[in-house]
Amino acid sequence: MEKQEVFELLKKDQFVRHNGIELTEIGEGEALGEMTITPDHLNGLGTVQGGALFTLADYVCAAAANSRGKSAVSLDGHIDFIKSVSKGTLTAHAKEISLGRTIATYNVTVTNEDNQLIAVFHAKFFRKD
Amino acid sequence: MEKQEVFELLKKDQFVRHNGIELTEIGEGEALGEMTITPDHLNGLGTVQGGALFTLADYVCAAAANSRGKSAVSLDGHIDFIKSVSKGTLTAHAKEISLGRTIATYNVTVTNEDNQLIAVFHAKFFRKD
Amino acid sequence: MEKQEVFELLKKDQFVRHNGIELTEIGEGEALGEMTITPDHLNGLGTVQGGALFTLADYVCAAAANSRGKSAVSLDGHIDFIKSVSKGTLTAHAKEISLGRTIATYNVTVTNEDNQLIAVFHAKFFRKD
Amino acid sequence: MEKQEVFELLKKDQFVRHNGIELTEIGEGEALGEMTITPDHLNGLGTVQGGALFTLADYVCAAAANSRGKSAVSLDGHIDFIKSVSKGTLTAHAKEISLGRTIATYNVTVTNEDNQLIAVFHAKFFRKD
Repeated sequence: MEKQEVFELLKKDQFVRHNGIELTEIGEGEALGEMTITPDHLNGLGTVQGGALFTLADYVCAAAANSRGKSAVSLDGHIDFIKSVSKGTLTAHAKEISLGRTIATYNVTVTNEDNQLIAVFHAKFFRKD
Repeated sequence: MEKQEVFELLKKDQFVRHNGIELTEIGEGEALGEMTITPDHLNGLGTVQGGALFTLADYVCAAAANSRGKSAVSLDGHIDFIKSVSKGTLTAHAKEISLGRTIATYNVTVTNEDNQLIAVFHAKFFRKD
Repeated sequence: MEKQEVFELLKKDQFVRHNGIELTEIGEGEALGEMTITPDHLNGLGTVQGGALFTLADYVCAAAANSRGKSAVSLDGHIDFIKSVSKGTLTAHAKEISLGRTIATYNVTVTNEDNQLIAVFHAKFFRKD
Repeated sequence: MEKQEVFELLKKDQFVRHNGIELTEIGEGEALGEMTITPDHLNGLGTVQGGALFTLADYVCAAAANSRGKSAVSLDGHIDFIKSVSKGTLTAHAKEISLGRTIATYNVTVTNEDNQLIAVFHAKFFRKD
């Protein structure tokens, strides 16, 4: 896929749109996205739900994985929750760790406006021919 | 926490409510939940977004982890995406694997109405005194 | 591969032989193995080293993954250390969770002689044509 | 623990000594180690066994985690196998990602002499008071 097609495909994602997550940049094997926290992102304790953090990280990761000219589908995702957060805008930054013929791996950091680490995410993608 | 308090706390989760996820049962170290797929759960390919599957699994897991009389917060979550799915109702079933003084671990399966495996999830919780 | 070939291939593993790990059974998508703890398995605290537990689990998992008529290579491995252990014989039991055309997933439990859970392991294999 | 004590404790690890793994450097939240491949590290396919790679990564990670003045025990470990390798010396480099009061997280890369990525590892440690 061309970068423009990747953008088009990712924009059609209704789950992230429904949850206020936006892609802000796609590079080569790299991507950035944002989520401004609203009450709809909070769990019963009043902090951002783990699923919201995962979705932000995973989405940005999918953008990075699909920036390489092949369609890539997610095999897995692993997230560590580092620090709870209740307000502000979160930024996810995905970076490629390895790019094989069929498997690629990515790390993502999720940070808040003070550049504090909120979560770290790691995922593998399967690259289709 | 008493089981009733756990239910109350989990019901306050606005992210899962916003995404149509419901808890259906809490046992001892076990829980069940459901998500009926709507267009809001779909990614650009028209299948349920990984973040939606993660949220369903993680939420049910939190219920199981908090069923043991201590407040428990999620340390991590790992999901493998087994099979893509586009419609119907998904069920998540969380089971306790180990219960230590400070750390507990859980496995979750996410299945569709035909009892096909959609995703498997594993998480660790930190139990507060 | 036929089951006999899998056995032959796995028996050639010099790392597990060097570390006293043995395969005891291979079924369909399932396998069992053992490690009798010696001083060579211990870390500086006198308990079995995490790497020894991982190796036991991963090896048994490889046996289960290669029992399905296709050669399978390990993509990843995730282990949670539940309980430390210093002596006796450990048993690893691998069970298939999913078997796709190219990806298969497995859970492994590592238990001691009192059937206490020492570690849980999860891995994905890539199945070659 | 003082850095010297950490070194002493880690040197007592008989499993890594038995498998030819050495710690070469400990910094603040960082560590380096090495393993020169011998036939004892190989699996049935003649490449370095996953358990050997895990052990190298996990050991270096334990050094980094114990460099912070508190005793730290491993909660888990996740490894992705990127590239198979049969000879030469492997280097593991552990870096701290987060350092909380009770939980710390680390990433480790395992590279060969050509600086090719062989495996990536991620782990969480529990910090004791």
